[in-house]
Amino acid sequence: MTFSIAYHAPDGSQLRAEIGAQETLLDAAHLAGVAVDATCGGRGRCRSCRVKILSGQVSPPTLQDTLQLGHEEVQERFRLACQTHAAGDCSVTAMPPKAESGFQILSGQVDFAQSGRLQLDSGVVKHLIQASTPQGEHHQTSDLEEILMQLPAQIERQVSLDLLRKVPGLLRKDKGRLTVTTFGSEVIDLEPGDTVSQSYGMAFDIGTTSIVGTLMDLNSGEQLASVGGLNPQAQYGGDLMSRIAYAQFDETKLSTLRGKILSAINEFIREACEKAGVSTDRVYKIVVVGNTCMHHVFLGVDVSYVGLAPYAPVVRDLLVYSARELPLKAAPNAKVCLLPIVAGFVGADTMACILATRIYESEQIRALVDIGTNGEVVMGSKDKLYACSAPAGPALEGAQIRHGMRGALGAIERVSIDDDVNCKVIGDAPAIGICGSGLIDACAKMLDAKVIDANGLLRKDGMPGLSPALQERLFKGESGRQFVLVHKEESGKDHDISITQADIRQLQLAKSAIYSGIVMLRNVMGLSNEQIDELMLCGGFGNYINIESSVKIRLLPELPTERITYMGNAAAVGAQMALLSETERLRSFDLAQKIEHVALAAMPEFQDIFVEGMNFTGETFAEQDRRAASS
Amino acid sequence: MTFSIAYHAPDGSQLRAEIGAQETLLDAAHLAGVAVDATCGGRGRCRSCRVKILSGQVSPPTLQDTLQLGHEEVQERFRLACQTHAAGDCSVTAMPPKAESGFQILSGQVDFAQSGRLQLDSGVVKHLIQASTPQGEHHQTSDLEEILMQLPAQIERQVSLDLLRKVPGLLRKDKGRLTVTTFGSEVIDLEPGDTVSQSYGMAFDIGTTSIVGTLMDLNSGEQLASVGGLNPQAQYGGDLMSRIAYAQFDETKLSTLRGKILSAINEFIREACEKAGVSTDRVYKIVVVGNTCMHHVFLGVDVSYVGLAPYAPVVRDLLVYSARELPLKAAPNAKVCLLPIVAGFVGADTMACILATRIYESEQIRALVDIGTNGEVVMGSKDKLYACSAPAGPALEGAQIRHGMRGALGAIERVSIDDDVNCKVIGDAPAIGICGSGLIDACAKMLDAKVIDANGLLRKDGMPGLSPALQERLFKGESGRQFVLVHKEESGKDHDISITQADIRQLQLAKSAIYSGIVMLRNVMGLSNEQIDELMLCGGFGNYINIESSVKIRLLPELPTERITYMGNAAAVGAQMALLSETERLRSFDLAQKIEHVALAAMPEFQDIFVEGMNFTGETFAEQDRRAASS
Repeated sequence: MTFSIAYHAPDGSQLRAEIGAQETLLDAAHLAGVAVDATCGGRGRCRSCRVKILSGQVSPPTLQDTLQLGHEEVQERFRLACQTHAAGDCSVTAMPPKAESGFQILSGQVDFAQSGRLQLDSGVVKHLIQASTPQGEHHQTSDLEEILMQLPAQIERQVSLDLLRKVPGLLRKDKGRLTVTTFGSEVIDLEPGDTVSQSYGMAFDIGTTSIVGTLMDLNSGEQLASVGGLNPQAQYGGDLMSRIAYAQFDETKLSTLRGKILSAINEFIREACEKAGVSTDRVYKIVVVGNTCMHHVFLGVDVSYVGLAPYAPVVRDLLVYSARELPLKAAPNAKVCLLPIVAGFVGADTMACILATRIYESEQIRALVDIGTNGEVVMGSKDKLYACSAPAGPALEGAQIRHGMRGALGAIERVSIDDDVNCKVIGDAPAIGICGSGLIDACAKMLDAKVIDANGLLRKDGMPGLSPALQERLFKGESGRQFVLVHKEESGKDHDISITQADIRQLQLAKSAIYSGIVMLRNVMGLSNEQIDELMLCGGFGNYINIESSVKIRLLPELPTERITYMGNAAAVGAQMALLSETERLRSFDLAQKIEHVALAAMPEFQDIFVEGMNFTGETFAEQDRRAASS
Repeated sequence: MTFSIAYHAPDGSQLRAEIGAQETLLDAAHLAGVAVDATCGGRGRCRSCRVKILSGQVSPPTLQDTLQLGHEEVQERFRLACQTHAAGDCSVTAMPPKAESGFQILSGQVDFAQSGRLQLDSGVVKHLIQASTPQGEHHQTSDLEEILMQLPAQIERQVSLDLLRKVPGLLRKDKGRLTVTTFGSEVIDLEPGDTVSQSYGMAFDIGTTSIVGTLMDLNSGEQLASVGGLNPQAQYGGDLMSRIAYAQFDETKLSTLRGKILSAINEFIREACEKAGVSTDRVYKIVVVGNTCMHHVFLGVDVSYVGLAPYAPVVRDLLVYSARELPLKAAPNAKVCLLPIVAGFVGADTMACILATRIYESEQIRALVDIGTNGEVVMGSKDKLYACSAPAGPALEGAQIRHGMRGALGAIERVSIDDDVNCKVIGDAPAIGICGSGLIDACAKMLDAKVIDANGLLRKDGMPGLSPALQERLFKGESGRQFVLVHKEESGKDHDISITQADIRQLQLAKSAIYSGIVMLRNVMGLSNEQIDELMLCGGFGNYINIESSVKIRLLPELPTERITYMGNAAAVGAQMALLSETERLRSFDLAQKIEHVALAAMPEFQDIFVEGMNFTGETFAEQDRRAASS
């Protein structure tokens, strides 16, 4: 798939290039012969390749965009060309680089707060000091004091025993030249010589299904390596509730789950550091986000009561533990920071999405929707935010769907229907199943083609008005009524790939959960759809769904599609922001205290909204018949 | 040995009783028929048995005396009869009990600061709370917050992972009735039900030679059990410097020393708790004092450079570590607090002596002398304190003395000489050796009897003026010139118990170290002996020495003996005070910062003072001869 990029010059002329999904707008500029600088070599470390998107869909803003350009500019569709991929044909204009160079940013000479850009204040500071051993006749001092006196006064005088034991040897090595690492007011590492330039951190988003980790340079904000994979706990239950049920009232099983996640995180830390060629000993800060269950299991905290009404967390606070206490052995010197939980299942991952989207400073009403096995919805503006969690179940991830699968090679991800069905398969391989975004798209198109009605009923045999090819795909088999998307002979399996009536019901339950959550918050706030200025789709899954189809099946409310935007993996971005900036991390605590949690199950009207939300848009077959009869 | 106690009535009449060393002045009152109340049953928990010592020596004041009566009264020789033993014949008067009862003291209704008594503010507080599980429709709370909201606002919101993991189960046990233990602003334990009355702590004085531990009730200040024994590190070196030499630049050996001390402390904790019938889990605070070397080894901190000039400690601060970090496994919930080090070898034990004697608030100049293998001297008043450490070596503990031994059964502890020698042996057993106090006493009496002269020279054969019995005891044997204290046939050994010329030299080196330290501080302060109002002898050893003999041999300066007092094991008492009172513990940090350390080796005049200090009082034989010749 290629996209056409038009670069507009100030004189009105245009230069064009075609790029693929892997190429960036910087690549497009070079192909088109447009002079766009890349002072930092296309690593997102400066602002020389700044462009403005005039029209068309591009990839969600990255943390580097926010770091370099500030949130305001990103909202106004300014981007770093080196960080941006096309998601459709686009018009772009190259912008003159701002006055400051990228290197000024790194040295902290810019007033970040003024520029709206993310402040690089990770809390980790490396102090290169020159300390002498206690001198003088009556030496009313000690080795440790000789080191502390070279540090700012607010640094705590007591250090951990591990560090204290290093002191006498270190002070006498390398002529007392040593690097002291602090986090906040605490000394967290002591090393001989000058290691100031080597300061790293990791941000982890622990999802029910998968884990994403990013190694970052805390001095520059640069992403050094990305790692990730499936959550190894998945074998003990695919969704939150089955994961909780597994460990409920069973310490050994909780310990098993915890062991799995700690091993995985340890492995990811080692892998990322190896990729980037840095020492795991110099990973000083790790920010972890995840839903309430993942958060608790990571800490080894009992989730038994998290799974029982009223689903209260054991702890919601902003927490900081030493890696040794957890234990995360791969990064022994790190402080592990967990973002706060808002309430119930509105967890630290949602908090990270809130940080990343900055919905809390929006003048207009915005909504953010994180679609997963649990769907979280946050709605509001700078005045007030509401949040809820809707248990969507795993259907959108392909589970409990007859031919369902994850969004991987061979999965149907897009469907179009005219006289016959046409499927786009991931990797253009023979279809072996259908993923969540394919299921949404298929149902939307089946609705348009009147293969199903607004109640989700598959068309009965013998009803007129379908093309012969479509008619042929619709029949009742062993697993009930179904609609064939890919015939056996074209599929990568020895059977048809079809959607059953039961599959449609599962999708209806899942999408109604998300939809009802959005409607519920809208009702609590007394708003109409028109008053929602933007609906931001977060989460890996959100980036793959077809917005129009999602509105069609009422997974999303009926907003003009231009008001619905993809935000990328906002939870991971939020975790990275909290990693690079204590301002952001501490802000999350204030926000978590202020956001109002709406427990859907406790709202009397929720049941009705949910049942109504099962429906798709349009008419039922019965209504269609009545209309045909009356006309 | 018995002492005669005279109880004086207000009308001038007297009642008398004879008591032994194990009996108290309360026992004496009961024997004499004097009405002295003991409301608390003689446990030092009230003030009903208050007496005033009119004359005679009694045992050093205990912590209970200070707790109940305040330091001022103790200085004025008021005592609790139930805590006080006689050390000689005494005159006593029973005092009307003060208005408040002992139980008011415990409930904290008395203004301790006003009364001058020790404030019971151990920092450990047990809060009995009634917490409910998160309730309400939208439950913007968590299990932990439900507990924290029942606690004072200053308590930190973050608890250790171990405690966090206990939270959900505990909150749902015993209907949410639970006891939260805090130390300062930190939560250190969570237990179901009401355990408020069970709050314990331990104070340890880790000496080079021996360890003393006391289990105390933090609610009442009561001593529940005492434990102690030899320091198991002794096999790796008897004095500080040989202990340091053993572990110097050898992590494995340091680790061996540390392991020995941690095992011993763990065992003492278990033993004390078993004696008192309390749970080791409810030991919440442990105060440890010891000299710089013991302090560092206990923490596992390298002592290599502590043993090299300028003998600087690695750390001097007031430290608090969790028992788990050390690790002290026997008391997993405890906070382990170390008193600060002043400088060099003026360690946390000296700091404890300073707390116990309150020398820092003295109007007059006082000196405290802690006699051990290292002798520490502190001198000054509320205006200014000076401190030094003098390496006395182990001679005063009986080491490096031919027939030397510790102060145990069979040791000669007192010597009198007239026409012949008369020895008092510990336990009235046959003598098997001589302990430090015996050696001091022997030399003083030998000096009086002109067996030795002011230079410490043993009288030569043939010099006239000795009785035949004494003459017979003086001869030159295999180990040089010697003076027999106990003849072979009366001893518990198959040889004579004697003092050699070399023994006398060892004693001279040891006593001159202490004496020179005192003189040095006196010189630095520009004082004469007359200006020293009181010299307080601290340490186990200090309690056994004969004061007159110590002045005679110039171990102590020539002060009127009534100005020299026994203070008991002040280091242990100071540790107990810091255990019961955060006011005292925190005070120690301020004091340590203010005390001026005098490094003896760095003072140019020290060498001369030390050499001069080797001498005893009186004349040399040469002077005696000259005098005899000229008269």
